[in-house]
Amino acid sequence: MYKSIKDILDNPIIESEITVKGWIRTKRSNGKISFVEINDGSNIKGIQAVIDEEDSNFQEKELKRLATGASISLTGILILSPAKGQTHEIKTISFNIIGEADQETYPLQKKRHSFEFLREIPHLRIRTNTFGAVARVRNQVSYKIHEYFQKNGFVYVNTPIITSNDGEGCGEMFRVSTLDLKSISKGKEIDFKDDFFGREVFLDVTGQLHGEAYAMALSKIYTFGPTFRAENSNTTRHASEFWMIEPEIAFCTLEDNIKLAEDCLKYILREVLNNCSQDMEFFDNFIEKGLIKKIENVINSNFEVITYTQAIKKLENTNKAFETKPYWGIDLQTEHERYLTEEIFKKPTVVIDYPKEFKAFYMKMNEDNKTVKGMDILVPRIGEIIGGSEREDNLEKLNKRIKELNLDVETLNWYLDLRRFGSTPHSGFGLGLERLVQYVTGMVNIRDVIPFPRTPKNICF
Amino acid sequence: MYKSIKDILDNPIIESEITVKGWIRTKRSNGKISFVEINDGSNIKGIQAVIDEEDSNFQEKELKRLATGASISLTGILILSPAKGQTHEIKTISFNIIGEADQETYPLQKKRHSFEFLREIPHLRIRTNTFGAVARVRNQVSYKIHEYFQKNGFVYVNTPIITSNDGEGCGEMFRVSTLDLKSISKGKEIDFKDDFFGREVFLDVTGQLHGEAYAMALSKIYTFGPTFRAENSNTTRHASEFWMIEPEIAFCTLEDNIKLAEDCLKYILREVLNNCSQDMEFFDNFIEKGLIKKIENVINSNFEVITYTQAIKKLENTNKAFETKPYWGIDLQTEHERYLTEEIFKKPTVVIDYPKEFKAFYMKMNEDNKTVKGMDILVPRIGEIIGGSEREDNLEKLNKRIKELNLDVETLNWYLDLRRFGSTPHSGFGLGLERLVQYVTGMVNIRDVIPFPRTPKNICF
Repeated sequence: MYKSIKDILDNPIIESEITVKGWIRTKRSNGKISFVEINDGSNIKGIQAVIDEEDSNFQEKELKRLATGASISLTGILILSPAKGQTHEIKTISFNIIGEADQETYPLQKKRHSFEFLREIPHLRIRTNTFGAVARVRNQVSYKIHEYFQKNGFVYVNTPIITSNDGEGCGEMFRVSTLDLKSISKGKEIDFKDDFFGREVFLDVTGQLHGEAYAMALSKIYTFGPTFRAENSNTTRHASEFWMIEPEIAFCTLEDNIKLAEDCLKYILREVLNNCSQDMEFFDNFIEKGLIKKIENVINSNFEVITYTQAIKKLENTNKAFETKPYWGIDLQTEHERYLTEEIFKKPTVVIDYPKEFKAFYMKMNEDNKTVKGMDILVPRIGEIIGGSEREDNLEKLNKRIKELNLDVETLNWYLDLRRFGSTPHSGFGLGLERLVQYVTGMVNIRDVIPFPRTPKNICF
Repeated sequence: MYKSIKDILDNPIIESEITVKGWIRTKRSNGKISFVEINDGSNIKGIQAVIDEEDSNFQEKELKRLATGASISLTGILILSPAKGQTHEIKTISFNIIGEADQETYPLQKKRHSFEFLREIPHLRIRTNTFGAVARVRNQVSYKIHEYFQKNGFVYVNTPIITSNDGEGCGEMFRVSTLDLKSISKGKEIDFKDDFFGREVFLDVTGQLHGEAYAMALSKIYTFGPTFRAENSNTTRHASEFWMIEPEIAFCTLEDNIKLAEDCLKYILREVLNNCSQDMEFFDNFIEKGLIKKIENVINSNFEVITYTQAIKKLENTNKAFETKPYWGIDLQTEHERYLTEEIFKKPTVVIDYPKEFKAFYMKMNEDNKTVKGMDILVPRIGEIIGGSEREDNLEKLNKRIKELNLDVETLNWYLDLRRFGSTPHSGFGLGLERLVQYVTGMVNIRDVIPFPRTPKNICF
C-alpha cells in the first residue's frame, strides 16, 4: 500500500521519488509556481508540493482543478524545503486530481470556521486541523488505555450494551424496543412480552455490574465501550452517548484502586506527549496556552488524596463566593470540585469517603455507617474525570442497602450471587474517555471530542 | 499489587515464599493431605496448593471451609511438583478463606455442565475452564486487532451507536426512545419531535457510513464497537448484539482490501497461537480436535479468490445435493459457502463480484452493470467471517442506485457529500468479532463466545 505522509517524513529519503495521496488543504500561486498543501490525515501539517506552472508537462486545465478539498495523487522528488514552515517539500513531476470539490458549495474554504458551525457538518469537520488532531489524540489515548491494561494482565471484557438492569439505580435510561408504536396508539396493550427480548430493556449506563461478575473469576478485567445517559443535560461536559473504560479488580482495596487510577492516567498522558507531539503543540498554540507544561506537571505530581469531610472543611475555610454554599451533607458541585483541584491543590485531587446518600448502592460502607468507600478524581478545568469505589462485598450489608434504597432485589439477585459465592474485596473505577480527551487536548466542549456527538434534541446522521 | 498465578509460573522462583489469591476449583483430601486447586483467571490451570492436615497450624474448622467456589488467599513455598499434571505446586504455610460458597446452593460443583445450563448463569459460567479460556482468547483477539491496525497507521474511530441512519437499508433495527408508552396507549399522538433526540433514532447496524467520512480525511481508519440487528434469527451464528471491526481505507481498491483482510486475519491467528497456547491446547483437546493444526494451515495458506460467477459454476458442477440448488442469480446460502471453503478449496475463500441485487447500495458497480465489487471471506465451519467491498465513489452512479432501491435520499445526503467533495476510490470490510472467536476457539454457538449474549426473547441481566 502507498506510504503515508507521516511515514515519508519520519524517514525522509532526500532526492527520492515519492507518491502521496490525500486532499488539498490550500493552494497558492504566484502565476509561475503553485504551492499545494496536501494532507492525508496521518499528520497535522501534511506536505507542500511545488508545481512549476510553466512546465509543459502540466496542462492549464489540470492546474485549474487544483483547489481546496480536491483529492489528489501526486508524484515528485522529496527535497529539503528552502522556505520556512516545513522541513521538506515535493518537487512535482506529475499529479492527478481524483475527485474535485466545487469551490462554490464546499463548506470548508480556507478560513477559520467556528466550532458551532462545524458541529453541523460532523462528516466534513474531520477535514480541519483541529478535528484531525483531536481524532489522532483520541486514537492514541484509546490505544494506550488498552496497552496499559494489557501490560498489567487485565482481560478486556465486552459487557452488554442492551441490558435489563438499571446499573446505577438512576433511572434515566433509553428504552430499546421493536414494539409497534402505531398499534399501541390504536389501543393495543403494552406488553413487553411481545417486545424483541420478551421484556423491557434499556441501553446500559455502566458495564460495572457485569464487569464485577467477570472480575470474580478473572481477577483483573476492564471494559471499554459506549455508555448512555438519557439525561436532559446541556453542558459542555455531558453527552448522551459516550465511551467509558471500567477496570474492576478482585482482592483490591480503595487504596490500591487509587494507585491504579493514578498510574494509568500518568501512563496515558506520557504516551500522548511522546507520540502526538505535533498535535499537542497545535493544541498548546491554538486551543489552550500552556497545555503541555500543565500535563507535564500532572505527570510529575503526586495526586492529592483527601476525604469528603476534609474537602468540605477546606471549602468552608475559603473566602470564595460559591453559588452553592459548601457544608457537610451536600454533594460536591462542579464549582467545588474545580476549586479544590484548580485553586487549593493545583493538581489532580482524589476525594474519598463520600456520604452514602450521593453514591450508588454498591459502594462499601465505612465503619462510621455514614460514608462509603467511593472516590472521585478531579482534574483542573474538567472536574470529575474518574469515579470509582471499593464495592460492598458483604452480602447482608449489600442486601440491606438495596432494600433501604427500594431497588428491585429481583433484578439484582444475580449480582448478589457474586457475594454469595466466593465473595472478595474488590474495587474499580470508570474513566470517561471524552472527558480525558477534553483534558488532554484542551477542547472545551465534549461535542468536539467525539466524532458524531449525541445530545438532547441533537443528532446528526 | 499481588502477583497473578500466571506471573508466578512464567518466572518461577523455586523455594520462594509466594501468596496467591483466587478461587478454589477443586479440593481433594486423603485424610492427611489436602490438595487444593486455586485459579485466579490468569491461566487455565491455576496452581495446586498442598496442605498438611496434620500440621497444627491449620485448624480443623478452617480446613473444612476449603471448598469449591470459595475465595482464598494462600501463602506458601513454591516447589517443583512431584506429581503429574503440573510443573509446580505450593507447600502451604497459611491460608485464609475470604468468602465461602455454600456447597448446597453453589451451581458450579465439580462436574461437567452443559453449555445450555451455563447460558442461564452467564455471571457464573466465567468461573469454568471453558469460559475462562474463551474470555482470554477473546481478549487476545481484540487486543491484537487494535495492535495490527495501530502498527499499520490506522486511526481508531468511535462511530455512533445511536443513529438516525439506516446503514444497510435493511430495516431490521432497534428503536431507541424515551417516549412515554403509557401516554401513547392513552391516545397521545406519536410525535418523535417529543422524543429525546427530537426524531426517530435507532441502534446502529454498521459504523461503515460514518467511518467512510473519517477515511475521507484520515485515509486509514477502523472502528471496533457493538452493532445490533433486530432480526428474529435463532442460529448458532447470529446474535442481536455483537462486536464488529470495520476498517475503511481511502485510495484503496478491492484487491488491496482483500490483501489487508488476509494479512490481518493471519496476524491475529499467529498471535493467538503464540500467546494463548495453554488455552488453545484446551480447545484442541476438548472442543475441536485438530484445531491448532487447522489454524496453522490457514496461516500458511494463500486465500483463494474467485468470483461469484466462478463459485456458482463450481457448485453446479458438484454432485452434492444442496437444499437450495445453486444457479447464477441466487444468493449464496451457508451450505454453499461452507461447501466452497470446506470441500472445494479446503481453505479460506474470498468470493467477489456478487450480483448487485444481494448487496448493499454503496458497493461499487462493475463494468458489466450486473455485479458489484463486494467480497465475502468464507472460512470452514463458520461460513462468512468478513464482508466488505470497494465503495461506489461516483456521485451519479451512487445517486442512481439509491433511487433504484427507493432509499431515503434525504437522510443519505451527508453521505453523498463524501462523493461531492474530494471523492476517492475507497474500500473496507466488516469483521465479526464473535465469529472470529468462534473460529479460533472451535466453540459452536455464538452465545458462548460473548459474555452476556442477547438473542430474540432472551436476555440475562
